[in-house]
Amino acid sequence: MTESFLQSVSYENGTLTILDQTKLPNLTEFIKIDRIEDAWDAIKQLKVRGAPAIGIAAAYGLLLGIQHATEENFDNFYEDFQKHSNYLSTSRPTAVNLFWALKRMNERVLKEKEKPISSIKNALEEEAHLIRQEDEEVCRSIGEHALTLFHDGIGVLTHCNAGGIATAKYGTALAPMYLAKEKGWNIKVYADETRPLLQGARLTTWELQQAGIDVTLITDSMAAMVMSKGWIQAVIVGCDRVAANGDVANKIGTYGVALLAKAHNIPFYVAAPISTIDLSTQTGQDIPIEERNAEEITEGFGTLTAPVGVKVFNPAFDVTPAEFITAIITEKGVLKGNYQEELPKLFL
Amino acid sequence: MTESFLQSVSYENGTLTILDQTKLPNLTEFIKIDRIEDAWDAIKQLKVRGAPAIGIAAAYGLLLGIQHATEENFDNFYEDFQKHSNYLSTSRPTAVNLFWALKRMNERVLKEKEKPISSIKNALEEEAHLIRQEDEEVCRSIGEHALTLFHDGIGVLTHCNAGGIATAKYGTALAPMYLAKEKGWNIKVYADETRPLLQGARLTTWELQQAGIDVTLITDSMAAMVMSKGWIQAVIVGCDRVAANGDVANKIGTYGVALLAKAHNIPFYVAAPISTIDLSTQTGQDIPIEERNAEEITEGFGTLTAPVGVKVFNPAFDVTPAEFITAIITEKGVLKGNYQEELPKLFL
Repeated sequence: MTESFLQSVSYENGTLTILDQTKLPNLTEFIKIDRIEDAWDAIKQLKVRGAPAIGIAAAYGLLLGIQHATEENFDNFYEDFQKHSNYLSTSRPTAVNLFWALKRMNERVLKEKEKPISSIKNALEEEAHLIRQEDEEVCRSIGEHALTLFHDGIGVLTHCNAGGIATAKYGTALAPMYLAKEKGWNIKVYADETRPLLQGARLTTWELQQAGIDVTLITDSMAAMVMSKGWIQAVIVGCDRVAANGDVANKIGTYGVALLAKAHNIPFYVAAPISTIDLSTQTGQDIPIEERNAEEITEGFGTLTAPVGVKVFNPAFDVTPAEFITAIITEKGVLKGNYQEELPKLFL
Repeated sequence: MTESFLQSVSYENGTLTILDQTKLPNLTEFIKIDRIEDAWDAIKQLKVRGAPAIGIAAAYGLLLGIQHATEENFDNFYEDFQKHSNYLSTSRPTAVNLFWALKRMNERVLKEKEKPISSIKNALEEEAHLIRQEDEEVCRSIGEHALTLFHDGIGVLTHCNAGGIATAKYGTALAPMYLAKEKGWNIKVYADETRPLLQGARLTTWELQQAGIDVTLITDSMAAMVMSKGWIQAVIVGCDRVAANGDVANKIGTYGVALLAKAHNIPFYVAAPISTIDLSTQTGQDIPIEERNAEEITEGFGTLTAPVGVKVFNPAFDVTPAEFITAIITEKGVLKGNYQEELPKLFL
């Protein structure tokens, strides 16, 4: 990747820059933010989306809150810090990475408590950059491991957007596409549009197009036909949570794609940062599935496309049983076989 | 069905009445037509859609053209008849049923040539009604045969719209739902929205809702999850063409649904009027698949939902191999087993 690689969240000289993902794919608009209130708003309004990207934005947002702090003793500064942290935590209370990043910033501030306030501020800025940088390394590492399963010239199908704009860089499921591009490989990507919210159509095609990667948009209902034509040699998707037995919760439609891949003898890979592996969840059956508003299906494009009052089932996620997953790709390597046994080893 | 059953095409006292399907599901609007030009327009503008419904509309449209004919000898009348028939054939030149219906009207007019013009006009009106009535009988018969495979209380998934509004009455894949309702059975229907053109969301849910049948709308990507929950005991779809070996071409997405049904051990049925069986097509590979405009996917609802210039693959149909089809249901009965052997027997 060159310097021109598009970063959805960055921070320099007291300014947070965020790619406004709500404007995609029609407008590529970066917002310059120097007040914590605007960072709060960007998270709240989904201008920044994707678990890692939200965590990074929260860490940088916290810097904005404390950058002009004038307190001279730690207790007063820490009170101010906590106030800003609590404020940011209200922007998207269901985002686990938001809390994770704020907690990590809290640990750092406490670690530095004996130092002068100016040094603490510098340490916090370092910590926020570290959060971003580590996410980039995780993504790159996932991409490198995934790439050992790919080769030049293959067709790869993906569902939803587990891409660079949802993370610090590279994304998870899309990371191997970017790394393949770096190597000069030609990978042909097929992107499911991913109803109802069209993350594939709006985001995946957009970011791959920006990077000059060959991408073709299809509706979710075309995946089977594209596979039957022999155009797909691998499927790779991201994930929201991996259970201890290897079952994976991800965007609705993932389970169907996994079944179609199996029917065509195509390997089905899940790109999973270790942060998404939850050994306290025994199986996919224990993962609660959020049901969302009917309007996402009946008037998702500003036009009413179904009769008024029609009954709708709109689950946001589905669970793909481990048996349909050829490999789980983490930043520590490629897991195959008995996930129940292999997953805990990642935490040793 | 009661007299209140909604008919998408009907004719009475020199007036053709057409349900304007382009206004669905938001407006239920019937157009009264008494000029052949308006019938031409209704076919051209897709106000009437579905192969059988188009054929019926063409036959009735032809009546409108000749109803005020003043010729007193057959040759002059027949010249007028042919002019109107040729005119109607330009409304939708790819619609096979349009030509089939006009040809049948032509056979009838020639058969009656010795009679007075007023009798010929009556015979043609009778023929048009027969076309409609026979289609209704075909659909009802398909529904009755399908119903032998269903039972009270089951969940049935369908894709696209092979419904009453595409035919004289009942539809093909939806016919058993209407007949089940007549029997007092509770069948719970799940309708795939059917991207890109959303026939499931716009039409199937609408017509079943009108009839008081329990219907739930899902996106195509949710079918697998709904099956895995045990909510579906049968899948039934319509078809565009059945090849001699039992392969079936139908709306894009059908093949995927068939694979998902197989993965869940759910029977997959195809409702196929004998008119769709084409023994001259050896296998599904010989059926040409129309590719349609990218805009149907990228801006199907008046909103641009993908980046400008993105590559798109948009096949209108896919082919489901015979091996995934549990039964083909025609008006003459349920076919299972070796389709290559069974299909020709329908024509004996």
